[in-house]
Amino acid sequence: MTDYILRIDCPDEKGLVHKITGVLFFNNLNVERTDEFVERENSHFFMRVAFSGDCDPDKIEDGLRGILPDSAKISLTAKQIKDVVVLVTKEHHCLGELLIRNEYKDLNFNILAVIGNHETLKPLTEKFNIPFHFLPASGTDDDARKAHEEEVKKVLIEYDYDYIVLAKFMRVLTPEFTATYRHQLINIHHSFLPAFIGANPYRQAYERGVKIIGATAHFVTDDLDEGPIIFQDVIRINHTKTAQELAAAGRDVEKIVLAKALKLVFEDRVFIAGNKTVIFE
Amino acid sequence: MTDYILRIDCPDEKGLVHKITGVLFFNNLNVERTDEFVERENSHFFMRVAFSGDCDPDKIEDGLRGILPDSAKISLTAKQIKDVVVLVTKEHHCLGELLIRNEYKDLNFNILAVIGNHETLKPLTEKFNIPFHFLPASGTDDDARKAHEEEVKKVLIEYDYDYIVLAKFMRVLTPEFTATYRHQLINIHHSFLPAFIGANPYRQAYERGVKIIGATAHFVTDDLDEGPIIFQDVIRINHTKTAQELAAAGRDVEKIVLAKALKLVFEDRVFIAGNKTVIFE
Amino acid sequence: MTDYILRIDCPDEKGLVHKITGVLFFNNLNVERTDEFVERENSHFFMRVAFSGDCDPDKIEDGLRGILPDSAKISLTAKQIKDVVVLVTKEHHCLGELLIRNEYKDLNFNILAVIGNHETLKPLTEKFNIPFHFLPASGTDDDARKAHEEEVKKVLIEYDYDYIVLAKFMRVLTPEFTATYRHQLINIHHSFLPAFIGANPYRQAYERGVKIIGATAHFVTDDLDEGPIIFQDVIRINHTKTAQELAAAGRDVEKIVLAKALKLVFEDRVFIAGNKTVIFE
Amino acid sequence: MTDYILRIDCPDEKGLVHKITGVLFFNNLNVERTDEFVERENSHFFMRVAFSGDCDPDKIEDGLRGILPDSAKISLTAKQIKDVVVLVTKEHHCLGELLIRNEYKDLNFNILAVIGNHETLKPLTEKFNIPFHFLPASGTDDDARKAHEEEVKKVLIEYDYDYIVLAKFMRVLTPEFTATYRHQLINIHHSFLPAFIGANPYRQAYERGVKIIGATAHFVTDDLDEGPIIFQDVIRINHTKTAQELAAAGRDVEKIVLAKALKLVFEDRVFIAGNKTVIFE
Repeated sequence: MTDYILRIDCPDEKGLVHKITGVLFFNNLNVERTDEFVERENSHFFMRVAFSGDCDPDKIEDGLRGILPDSAKISLTAKQIKDVVVLVTKEHHCLGELLIRNEYKDLNFNILAVIGNHETLKPLTEKFNIPFHFLPASGTDDDARKAHEEEVKKVLIEYDYDYIVLAKFMRVLTPEFTATYRHQLINIHHSFLPAFIGANPYRQAYERGVKIIGATAHFVTDDLDEGPIIFQDVIRINHTKTAQELAAAGRDVEKIVLAKALKLVFEDRVFIAGNKTVIFE
Repeated sequence: MTDYILRIDCPDEKGLVHKITGVLFFNNLNVERTDEFVERENSHFFMRVAFSGDCDPDKIEDGLRGILPDSAKISLTAKQIKDVVVLVTKEHHCLGELLIRNEYKDLNFNILAVIGNHETLKPLTEKFNIPFHFLPASGTDDDARKAHEEEVKKVLIEYDYDYIVLAKFMRVLTPEFTATYRHQLINIHHSFLPAFIGANPYRQAYERGVKIIGATAHFVTDDLDEGPIIFQDVIRINHTKTAQELAAAGRDVEKIVLAKALKLVFEDRVFIAGNKTVIFE
Repeated sequence: MTDYILRIDCPDEKGLVHKITGVLFFNNLNVERTDEFVERENSHFFMRVAFSGDCDPDKIEDGLRGILPDSAKISLTAKQIKDVVVLVTKEHHCLGELLIRNEYKDLNFNILAVIGNHETLKPLTEKFNIPFHFLPASGTDDDARKAHEEEVKKVLIEYDYDYIVLAKFMRVLTPEFTATYRHQLINIHHSFLPAFIGANPYRQAYERGVKIIGATAHFVTDDLDEGPIIFQDVIRINHTKTAQELAAAGRDVEKIVLAKALKLVFEDRVFIAGNKTVIFE
Repeated sequence: MTDYILRIDCPDEKGLVHKITGVLFFNNLNVERTDEFVERENSHFFMRVAFSGDCDPDKIEDGLRGILPDSAKISLTAKQIKDVVVLVTKEHHCLGELLIRNEYKDLNFNILAVIGNHETLKPLTEKFNIPFHFLPASGTDDDARKAHEEEVKKVLIEYDYDYIVLAKFMRVLTPEFTATYRHQLINIHHSFLPAFIGANPYRQAYERGVKIIGATAHFVTDDLDEGPIIFQDVIRINHTKTAQELAAAGRDVEKIVLAKALKLVFEDRVFIAGNKTVIFE
């Protein structure tokens, strides 16, 4: 008896829930939870079904193909633990959070490796017996960027990962890179997007005198500050905090936001819908 | 084309989602959103379906009866605006919130009448052309309580309400009264239940030196502080606040918690499951 | 025995707290609470003292002038209830909140009058026996704007107000107008500034797929979306909400954020420090 | 030029702020921030002053003794990094949080040692080169409890600590033990106190169907669930969560609440006032 997660998204039409659950019913499977949502603006259907039972996944998928629109995206998985590679620069707070959770399986993932463009976090990573790949970058111009990304790709190819987590990876990625790993790249951004896009958001927040700061975890599409938002959280601040203290307070939010977003993604709860997400919590 | 909300709860068995949505599909109805949950401890099934289309409700219910367990509770409604009677004592903040929302239809309800055991809130109620019934109570002993509740019942019987909202009604209700209006009584409690049950929770919170206070909206079962919780919210406080200031800050939370809980209930999103609620937000 | 609030801001120098409290001590006054903050970037000193006792305010101010830098701003007030004029357009939720609080003195203010550029909110205002001035605007070009603001000024001059509250007043104000009422204009902005500046922030939030929305109360300086922020709050939202539902949810935040900001201002807790605020909560 | 924190609490009387700041002024010291609060119920005065300058602490304390009531508690420290011993049982989440913060000095403390009544967390502790003392307990009766506490005391005596942090130490402490380390013991409690006091709060929360759960960091006085509260935080939950999932979600809150409480304490911002705290944030 295994637990499966079935995910379907396709153009909406009448009877989809009935037909989809019919395939499961006639295969004698036990539905534990159904979530379904139709985005009316685009008339698009999203469904997540958790079910258990003895099951031939190929047969289920064939059955579903027969009743769903041709353009339907279907995924059926029993893989509850996702494999990830983590990219970092120098800041330790998000990586530390992930390493502790990985060590104790607090989050349903395995960290296969950490890649850093600085060597700073090598000792921390290796304390937990995770391989650390130090890939220094020679600059930030286009050529240096592409050259560095080629090195990253060479390391990535060694691993059989489901997702790549940018845990305070502070280099801007090229569109080629983000396109290659489309829907696999998850970033933590140090602001409550879309406020304070760009460099040094805590300094910006300080200058603007905001009373709340936050962090945003999102899939990466074209650049580091865009892409479908998965999770956000905020904390209250006040006039006594310097920009440095805002950054320190923000780091506590960042790591928790990243961990919560990853949990949602790794539990197969998150659908990407254009530049937005549909999340069945 | 009307929008309907179908709600079903029953013991779980295989194929329920398939069969239920089949009844809708074969009646040519258009499912807009499905939420379904199985409580594993009791193996109990809860489902809410929003659908549109041209529909004979009796025929749908008959169809569902044919496929569901005998003990299934089925409700099918197109009534999106709920009718309510509000019970109050002296505090104005919750009633004020409800009267403004009623005036502008900010909440999907109609206030049919307000009943008060004090006359304090008559002028406020009548500003909005809502009838106010002043029903003074002669005491708090059992006989006085029963006598007063009989008066309340006589007024209630005049109105065709869906729910009775206790908007800071400060009298303890008898089990007979709460049993009579089972699943129709919604109360706002001035604490983050189950902390500070009983009298003067803000004084209790002050004495205990808590750093967060809250409010709880719940269905009333046996007594005012128990029953399935619908919604809760909290605010941060600090040492500078007196017990009176805590109460004032708490009132802002109370009125918003009550309004949010009512919205969930009036949109038919809340199922009562023993002493808990299942809510499809 | 009256309670006074003394507020001082001036360039920082050694001994300020000692000297200031000395003036109070030697006048036999009883300090109840002192808050003091030095903004290091500008080396600027802010202090708020709540004290009680029998006091000649002029003598205290003279004493303070003698020991403080010439550029010091000193304010000493026993006026705990502030007088305000409220400006509105069509939306009722913030005005409703303020009228109920005014009726029951839930907030330490008196609403002297309401000015509307539409007549929509006249009936609500008059239910509470507050004068409503309907001042229609003939357009949004510069001339129409100035002509309308002249009408508003003529009404304002009739009242002896401390603050002007923009409770969803949807007209952009000219720099002349905002300069005239510098530090007296408080606005509620329907977004978590600086995100979604400009028109239709809830539509913008919907398009961007954010998971949290908010509201911001601030002093108005040059335009409606800038100026020192007083208070902000947020709520979680999800993919099921339409732009209209976001706006509805946002309105609940707006009115509470406005009320909380006003409370801080009316209790003389808020200092304007350039484009930021220093708030002694 | 060192930064000092001066903390005073004593019965209130007129002129305290003036006299205290006078001592600093006449010693040519530079006050950076003053926080002061008088608890009216007990007429008790609390003050925290951050100041810089060249200073003989003994001379300052002598000066203050001369002007303050005899019962005044005075503390003057330049020690910004506090030394702590951490007590744990089996759960890793709080210890992990503290070890990472210790490694990178994210929190102004040094972990001198970890004491565990189980050996579970030895490997984690030793990854960070912190000594781990495994002190197994032979039971939970009074004798076993006292015997175990004697062992703990023997280890504690080896270290020059400022505070003892109970980071999910799951043994009930004797009154003798808590009295010995009065005002030095900080505990993280896995519920939003005073709700769900006692064993298995997440199971209790699940049974009660609450919509929000939380955690509480507090000084320990007589037993593990009482004592002055330092910090609390909460998260929303819903009906889909099992008791186990509540516990998992709660752990994320616990570790952040503990870290925030420790920051407040280690920055000398927290005064104990009977069973409450006064905190100058």
